[in-house]
Amino acid sequence: MFGFFGRKGQEEKKKEENFCVESDLSKGIGLKVPSFHESVNYMYQKVKEAQLSNVTDRFEAMEAVRCKFCKEGVSCQLCSMGPCRITPKTPRGVCGIDVHGIVMRNLLIKANMGLSAYTYHCREAALTLLETAKGNTIYEIKDPSKIDLLAEVLDIDTSLPLNEKAKLVAEGVLKSLSQNDYSVFVEKLAPESRKEVFRKLGIMPKGPMNELVDSVTRSMTNIDGDYISLALAALRNGVASAFGTLIPLEIIQDALYGTPTPHECEVDFGVLDPDYVNILPNGHEPFVGMALVEVAKDPEIQKMAREAGAKGVKIVGSIETGQEMMARLQCGDVFAGLTSNWISIEYFLSTGAVDVFAMDMNCSLANLKEYADKYNFKLVAVSNLIGVPGSIRLEYKPGKEKEIAKEIIKIAIENFKERKNKPNTDVSRFKQKAIVGFSAEAIVNALGGSLNPLLEVIKNGDIKGVVALVNCTSLANGPQDSMTVQIAKELIKRDILVIGAGCGNAGLQKAGLETIEAVDKYAGPKLAGICKALGIPPVLSFGTCTDTGRIIMTVIAIANALGVDPSQLPVAVTAPEYMEQKAVIDGFSAVAMGLYTHVSPVPPVTGSDKVVKLLTEEVEGLTGGKIAVGDDPIVAADGIEEHIMKKREALGI
Amino acid sequence: MFGFFGRKGQEEKKKEENFCVESDLSKGIGLKVPSFHESVNYMYQKVKEAQLSNVTDRFEAMEAVRCKFCKEGVSCQLCSMGPCRITPKTPRGVCGIDVHGIVMRNLLIKANMGLSAYTYHCREAALTLLETAKGNTIYEIKDPSKIDLLAEVLDIDTSLPLNEKAKLVAEGVLKSLSQNDYSVFVEKLAPESRKEVFRKLGIMPKGPMNELVDSVTRSMTNIDGDYISLALAALRNGVASAFGTLIPLEIIQDALYGTPTPHECEVDFGVLDPDYVNILPNGHEPFVGMALVEVAKDPEIQKMAREAGAKGVKIVGSIETGQEMMARLQCGDVFAGLTSNWISIEYFLSTGAVDVFAMDMNCSLANLKEYADKYNFKLVAVSNLIGVPGSIRLEYKPGKEKEIAKEIIKIAIENFKERKNKPNTDVSRFKQKAIVGFSAEAIVNALGGSLNPLLEVIKNGDIKGVVALVNCTSLANGPQDSMTVQIAKELIKRDILVIGAGCGNAGLQKAGLETIEAVDKYAGPKLAGICKALGIPPVLSFGTCTDTGRIIMTVIAIANALGVDPSQLPVAVTAPEYMEQKAVIDGFSAVAMGLYTHVSPVPPVTGSDKVVKLLTEEVEGLTGGKIAVGDDPIVAADGIEEHIMKKREALGI
Repeated sequence: MFGFFGRKGQEEKKKEENFCVESDLSKGIGLKVPSFHESVNYMYQKVKEAQLSNVTDRFEAMEAVRCKFCKEGVSCQLCSMGPCRITPKTPRGVCGIDVHGIVMRNLLIKANMGLSAYTYHCREAALTLLETAKGNTIYEIKDPSKIDLLAEVLDIDTSLPLNEKAKLVAEGVLKSLSQNDYSVFVEKLAPESRKEVFRKLGIMPKGPMNELVDSVTRSMTNIDGDYISLALAALRNGVASAFGTLIPLEIIQDALYGTPTPHECEVDFGVLDPDYVNILPNGHEPFVGMALVEVAKDPEIQKMAREAGAKGVKIVGSIETGQEMMARLQCGDVFAGLTSNWISIEYFLSTGAVDVFAMDMNCSLANLKEYADKYNFKLVAVSNLIGVPGSIRLEYKPGKEKEIAKEIIKIAIENFKERKNKPNTDVSRFKQKAIVGFSAEAIVNALGGSLNPLLEVIKNGDIKGVVALVNCTSLANGPQDSMTVQIAKELIKRDILVIGAGCGNAGLQKAGLETIEAVDKYAGPKLAGICKALGIPPVLSFGTCTDTGRIIMTVIAIANALGVDPSQLPVAVTAPEYMEQKAVIDGFSAVAMGLYTHVSPVPPVTGSDKVVKLLTEEVEGLTGGKIAVGDDPIVAADGIEEHIMKKREALGI
Repeated sequence: MFGFFGRKGQEEKKKEENFCVESDLSKGIGLKVPSFHESVNYMYQKVKEAQLSNVTDRFEAMEAVRCKFCKEGVSCQLCSMGPCRITPKTPRGVCGIDVHGIVMRNLLIKANMGLSAYTYHCREAALTLLETAKGNTIYEIKDPSKIDLLAEVLDIDTSLPLNEKAKLVAEGVLKSLSQNDYSVFVEKLAPESRKEVFRKLGIMPKGPMNELVDSVTRSMTNIDGDYISLALAALRNGVASAFGTLIPLEIIQDALYGTPTPHECEVDFGVLDPDYVNILPNGHEPFVGMALVEVAKDPEIQKMAREAGAKGVKIVGSIETGQEMMARLQCGDVFAGLTSNWISIEYFLSTGAVDVFAMDMNCSLANLKEYADKYNFKLVAVSNLIGVPGSIRLEYKPGKEKEIAKEIIKIAIENFKERKNKPNTDVSRFKQKAIVGFSAEAIVNALGGSLNPLLEVIKNGDIKGVVALVNCTSLANGPQDSMTVQIAKELIKRDILVIGAGCGNAGLQKAGLETIEAVDKYAGPKLAGICKALGIPPVLSFGTCTDTGRIIMTVIAIANALGVDPSQLPVAVTAPEYMEQKAVIDGFSAVAMGLYTHVSPVPPVTGSDKVVKLLTEEVEGLTGGKIAVGDDPIVAADGIEEHIMKKREALGI
């Protein structure tokens, strides 16, 4: 176990090693390399030569002007009596709030945003299902069993005809989002032992939209200045998020696009072939991306592309939208695979091989216009939320996806006509295979129809435990994906199975950890034996950050099978490169579920010793889970392994 | 007209005059006086002697450590790649967002909170109506005509029995909050000319909860980096807030507690008589306060208080909860009147005359425990949202109000037994009469049943125009309520009728502006003539900040009667001491409605010239409304009058 304070010196040292920040910024990049990945480092040099503003350089420049108060979470800008910051001479904000309240409230404001984003995504998925059930979209229900799963939760007759049932399910999910009483998804899907904890702590949530209203209001000036009730609100949001949004939304996406099954795909910048018309759906929602694939399959469309001088049209997955698609699509004819995660965006857009960057709900950088101008591609915003100056707007509404997809392809083909005569950078060598598409169902299938074989190998210690690595990617604790890849390697070496999700998952894929070859190369001997027997990699691709719901369902299934509470399992979560607000809410979901949750870099809470103690120690007495921080992958893996061994011991296995 | 930049020197000068901040903080308070009000200045000295942390001293101490970046709105703490701040060397955040995006996003985050708070309040009101219609609460429907008004909007048969109708209305309002299509309240209540503007700008809102989900999500990292789409989102939230939350919530409160009618009441600290058991419902929601009054009327309760040595039990209105109550209750037997607004809280709690401070949804300071300990009163949180350390929790749910009220009274009487032997400060001399309880209906009644007489006096220039003064109270532009009172005096002197709402309204009441005596003392000759003829003060009390909905309904009624769009009227809004996030959303509501909106102190947007230009100039071409800033009451009144005269000229009156 490790805390915030004792290791400061060590962390600083580690940081220096990772970063090697030069004292003179004019010398250029101080990071030895911006990324763990060669593709990114290679393209970074090109972007640097082109003198374009990019995330690495901006990060380094910002290091010199960071505000210590903001970094520690002790600054507040909410009202006209501020801005305030807590200092020895100003121990309270003007409104009277103390440092613990400010720090925890600042964190809650981020958690609210994460809950909101998942609620948005869930609502869009339900609306898409609704229109699909009515026959108004290009989609069809690929996995009816998932409609039944939701129908059971919502008390809908499963013997109804599929579309009628799907319509009721969609309406039921939409209604559940604004439930004024306890969320039906928590009531029906949370284990009884967890619900007891939730009730005891007062964190049984209503529908997520009502929790959002309560929590955003709570975060205002002069309402909640108590770090404990603020922390409980964050945990309640975490429960609302996991059960009320993530689980239904992933089930709906499985219903619409198929439940993922393991298959091989390709990742990294090399999936971009400049001779094709390349369209990159980017973000977190698969709706437009899936429509693009459907429409691009049309031989007429491919013919149009060839007539424009291209080899055809490729839909190339970008960040989480790409993960959602890759988990369900074969790589090949039309779908090319996945480029990378968010920190890579500017770098793969500089290859000169892109025609359209089609941006849905999140993770699109605001400064892409100069890239579009220089590297000859078009920016298309397919979500009303996206505000990237210079974008063409083709906003998704269920039922409009075919029209939008056709229009995007038209724009892309027109773009190709100009682009084909412009230079591009050869990135074909940066290509990596990865086995993707795991899910609880896929694991059960791989195990021959039952979880029992997995439980057996956990019991006998061939697999010590399971860690879900769910997160973004960040430069704040070293080069992109460096911490992510290192901690995953550390864990599998120790016979701990890793499940990957989120932007970090792309890092694991690009690093070759989601291959059969990784078994011999990186896994501990016992885990290696199991992987070989089952024909699986030591790191299983569970998709996107949205798949946190899928992971929680898997954890619950394992706990139920063993007849224990999730907090008793030899499992843990790590977010080794958390970046944004979805990661914050995921952290609270995990802690509410009773899980040990490692987070790096250290969140902006160090200004309050009480908040630190609450989140890293005391909360364990409440939910069984807690936050552990630390930017050293070995030390972090030590903490996780220690926790897993403690849980094994308690279970007597 | 005045903008941000030309007047900096002047504003600084004005500020120095108002504040006289000493260079050496150890000398104590640098403000000449903390407040416009003698009562506050008197009690401030007592608090100072007692060496208690208080808002005035905290404000002054904070002045020395303010962050220039936060003040200008150019700091961002959202993600782990930050904190960022925009400087010449760091023109963009690490994520790529520019200064305009950061500034507008920071403002949108505040607007989101305001929308959320009003949505919360509207939901609680609708739930209260629902349980009342079912016969489960202590309340009864006092104004059935308001149920009919909502029934008409919601297409509910008005001929149904009252309770059945009220139940359907409550359910309809709850449903409207989570509408996925355009809000029925906007569709039905906004003038056609405004709806055209909303549609053209893409700011026709869905139900407020869905707008909140969209807008909070939009405010995250890497989603909307475009200050224009962020500003449009703020305006859309403004429309959702005004029509989707404020209007239905005030109509429901009128239905439940009666539509306000003008009557005389008493305000200021002198309403606290230490010989009574004094219970102060504080916040923004009248639910528990109204139940307290009902329960305290019981002779048995009064007897219990007398047996404890008190003269009886008084319910004393505190801030906006008090305004809601005072607008509808006679001052006298049980309801004692209103203490003051939020900056006064620590000062009136130090009188030693309080037994229970009962806190609903907002505007309770986090540091009140030391006051409760020193001045012998109890803190009771009656809302789940309130987090004031040291509080007893008795959380309101419709149907529980009687039980809660009884329990609070019990606690208060017990408290009195101890308190009566402790010292108190005599504040009986601080007492002011005020005529309160105006509403659109009350004005029409005062005018003999029609708006025509008002339209006539506006047309003939006896009243040049009408200004709604809606806001909080702040120290950021001088002593508490000083700017508020000064600008109101300036306006009525110029024959402009002022409507007061919000915390600032208490400032106007305490300053004696809501009296018949104020007519001769402060009003211009023409306005004075009208006031005398109608028997009204020159400043009309419209209640709380929540009554912004009531004001907008009044503006629409006037515009409809004249057959013009609201933006064409000789009216304006001023928020001369805006403090928190409800004021931010109210500002956007007003601008979306096409109204000239003066705001002081200057919001944290000065870091972006483009945002400043958009909000203070360009938006006028879009909605007809705009923001005007300025901390000098005379200059601000000049700007308002100039605008009103321009509108009169355009109307040919």
